Amino acid sequence: MNRSECEALDRSDPLAGKRAAFVIPEGLIYLDGNSLGLLPAHVAERVGEVITRQWGGALVRAWNDHGWFALPRRVGDRIAALVGAPAGSVVAGDTISVNLFKALAAATALAGERRVILSDDGNFPSDLYVAQGFRDLVDRGYTLETVAPEEVLDAIDDRVAVTLLTEVDYRTARRHDMAAVTARAHAHGAVTIWDLAHSAGAMPVDLSGTRADVAVGCTYKYLSGGPGSPAFLYVRPDLQERVVPALAGWWGHALPFAFTPDYVPAPGILRHQCGTPPILSMAALDAALDLWDDVDMHAVRRKSLALCGLFIDLVERRCAAHGVAVTGPRDPGKRGSHVALRHPHGHAVVQALIAAGVVGDFRAPDLMRFGFSPLSTRFTDVWDAVEAMARILDAVAWDRPDFHARRAVT
Amino acid sequence: MNRSECEALDRSDPLAGKRAAFVIPEGLIYLDGNSLGLLPAHVAERVGEVITRQWGGALVRAWNDHGWFALPRRVGDRIAALVGAPAGSVVAGDTISVNLFKALAAATALAGERRVILSDDGNFPSDLYVAQGFRDLVDRGYTLETVAPEEVLDAIDDRVAVTLLTEVDYRTARRHDMAAVTARAHAHGAVTIWDLAHSAGAMPVDLSGTRADVAVGCTYKYLSGGPGSPAFLYVRPDLQERVVPALAGWWGHALPFAFTPDYVPAPGILRHQCGTPPILSMAALDAALDLWDDVDMHAVRRKSLALCGLFIDLVERRCAAHGVAVTGPRDPGKRGSHVALRHPHGHAVVQALIAAGVVGDFRAPDLMRFGFSPLSTRFTDVWDAVEAMARILDAVAWDRPDFHARRAVT
Repeated sequence: MNRSECEALDRSDPLAGKRAAFVIPEGLIYLDGNSLGLLPAHVAERVGEVITRQWGGALVRAWNDHGWFALPRRVGDRIAALVGAPAGSVVAGDTISVNLFKALAAATALAGERRVILSDDGNFPSDLYVAQGFRDLVDRGYTLETVAPEEVLDAIDDRVAVTLLTEVDYRTARRHDMAAVTARAHAHGAVTIWDLAHSAGAMPVDLSGTRADVAVGCTYKYLSGGPGSPAFLYVRPDLQERVVPALAGWWGHALPFAFTPDYVPAPGILRHQCGTPPILSMAALDAALDLWDDVDMHAVRRKSLALCGLFIDLVERRCAAHGVAVTGPRDPGKRGSHVALRHPHGHAVVQALIAAGVVGDFRAPDLMRFGFSPLSTRFTDVWDAVEAMARILDAVAWDRPDFHARRAVT
Repeated sequence: MNRSECEALDRSDPLAGKRAAFVIPEGLIYLDGNSLGLLPAHVAERVGEVITRQWGGALVRAWNDHGWFALPRRVGDRIAALVGAPAGSVVAGDTISVNLFKALAAATALAGERRVILSDDGNFPSDLYVAQGFRDLVDRGYTLETVAPEEVLDAIDDRVAVTLLTEVDYRTARRHDMAAVTARAHAHGAVTIWDLAHSAGAMPVDLSGTRADVAVGCTYKYLSGGPGSPAFLYVRPDLQERVVPALAGWWGHALPFAFTPDYVPAPGILRHQCGTPPILSMAALDAALDLWDDVDMHAVRRKSLALCGLFIDLVERRCAAHGVAVTGPRDPGKRGSHVALRHPHGHAVVQALIAAGVVGDFRAPDLMRFGFSPLSTRFTDVWDAVEAMARILDAVAWDRPDFHARRAVT
C-alpha cells in the first residue's frame, strides 16, 4: 500500500461526494468526529433563517407556521430511518444523559420486580452515573452490577431487570453483539437499554430486527448535529403505551395546550418529550440530517471498515516499532468506527499530532483515539495521518531524560 | 389620557433606548413576549459566528478555546444578577420541566421524612405534571396537594415537605408574596421551590433576601433567549453541598474527563448539570443577556407597572361596555407583567387582533393574555393595541347569529 493506492480508493469511493458538504478547515485532517462532528456547510444559513425569519419575523406563530412543534418528531423520524426503527418510534430532545434517565425509568417499570441493572465497566461513565442517580433516587433496592464487556452475555440471568449497554465502547471501539445480547436478555425476561452514541451515523443499527426495547443516542458525533445537539430516545412500538414517563412534562402531554391539571401521556413515543425543546440547536440538527437522507448505512459501514482497517495496518507497519499498540478486538465485525492506540506518551503524541494538523483525542491513561467519519474522511487522510504520526515518533526520543523534563514543565 | 400623553411617556421613558436592540416586524405590536420574547438584533450574527468560526473552524477545541464548557455557569451568573442571587448559585441548562424534576429531588431530600408537596391550582400545569411524575416514580408516599392560590399561605403547616409555586400565574398574572410564603414555609420547616418563568426579566426577584431554597426559571420569555432556550436552576449556596443530584450526569461530575466509574458531584451548583448542553441555543441566550447587563430591574418594574396600569385603564374605558373584563388582582403589587382579560369570544377577538397586527394570545376558556416586556414595549403600543381592540369590538356584533355561524365553520 502506498499513497497512490489511497488516492485510487478515494476516487472509487461511492461516498466521496459527501465530503464537499462539510466545512473542513484548510489542511486539517479531522479524526475526532466521534467527539464533535464536522459542520455541514449549509447549517449556518439554515439556522440564520430560523433566527431571522422564523423567530424574528414570525415570533410566537413560528411554533405552528414553521413547524417548530413538529421538529422533535420530524427529527426523530429521520434518525429512526438511520437506526433501523420505524417512523413514530424515535423522538429527539434533551441530552443523552437525561434520556438515559427516562430509559431507566421506562425499562425498570417494564421489568417488574427485579432489581438488577447490568452494565459493563467499559460503558461510558455518564451512563453509569445516571444509573447510580436513578438507583439512589428511587431507593427500591436496585443494584448496578458491572462486569467486563466480554462477560456481559454470560452475566445475563433471571435476576437481571435491565441491561444498560453502549453498543460501541467510547474508548476501545469494542462492539457488543446487539442481536445476541438482546436475545439472551429476552430469553431471561430482562429489558434492554442500548446507548447508540458511537453507532448512529457510523454503521447500520437494526433496532427493529434485534427487538431492542429502549435505546438512546447522540447526534453531535457522526451525525454532525452540532455541539450538544439534542439526543434521541427510542421505545419499541409495542411497549410504548405501557410506559408512563417519569419526566412528565407538558410537551409530552396528550393535550399540552388544554392546560389540564393532570398529566395524561401523549400517544406513543411523543410522551417522552418533557419541556420546550431548544429550537435553534434542534434546527441545526434537522439541517445536518439533510446529508443523510440518501445515504445507505451499509455503504457507510463498508467504508468505515476500510478506513479503520487501513489505519490499523499502516499504524502497525509504521508505528509499532515505536511502542504504539492497537487496542480493542481485531475482528472488524466487533469494532465501531474509531480506533484506539496505546502509547506511554499518548498525550504528548496527540498534542504533537494536533500541532501538525491531525486531530484525534486522548483518553487517560494512555489511549489515543482516532475516529473515522465515513462521509468526510478520505483514505489519503488516513495515510497522511499515519505518516504524520510516524514522523513525530521518529523525531522524538521518548525515552530521553530531557523529553520528560520538558513534559513536566509544560 | 390620549395618544399624545402616551407619546410623552415614551419620550421620558428611561428604558426607551433598549427598543432599538430588538427586531420588531414593521407595524407589529407584539404583546406576547411572555410566551416568546422578541429577537435581539445581534443574536443572528453571534450564533452565526459560533457556528462558522467556533464549530466550523475550531471544532472540538472550541469547548476550551471558545469557552463552551464555561457557558452554563457564565450564563447562570448573568441570570443570577437579575434574580437577586450571588454568582455561583445559578446554572443554565435543560428545560424548566427537567429542572423542576431536579428541584423536587433536591427539595424533598432536604425536607426529610415529610411527604406533602404543596402547590396551587393556578400553577403552570407542567409544574404539576413534573410533580406527579416524580411522586409516581419515587413511590414513597408523596402526595401533591393543591389549594387555591390565595389559600397557599394558610395551607403551609408542619406536614408540608415542599412548596412548589410559580411566583406569577401564567394566566391571571397574580403574584405570590415570595418573601411571606418562604418565611412561613421556613417557620414550618418546609422547603420552597419557586418557578420564576414569568418573573425573570419582568421584575426584581430577591432570591437571596427571601432566602428561597430552590428556584427554576425560563429564559425564552422576558429575557428573549430564543425558542426553547435553556432554563436555569438556583440552589441557595448554603444548601448546595447537601444535595446530590438525582439526574447525575458527567457534566455535573467533579472530574468529568477523568471518566471514573463512580459519580462524584462537582462542587456547588455545577453538579446540577447533567448531559452536554445545546451550545447553539445556549450561545443565543448568552448573546441576548448582553441587553440586560446595564438594566436596573427596579426601572423595569416601574415601567412594567405603568404599562400594565395604562392598559387596564384604557381597556376598562374603551372595552368594558363590550363585555371585556380585567381578571386577576387589582393591586399592582400583586401582579406580574401581563394582563389577562376575559371575553366570551376571547378566541375570536385575539384572532382579529392578530390580523390587525396586535399579537397577544388566548388561553381557554375565555382568557386573552397581553404581555408587556418593558425593554421593548412603548406606551403608544399600549394605546394603539387598545384602540385596535375597541375597533374590533365596535365592529362586530358578537351576539348576532351569523357571527356564531361563521365561527362554527372556520
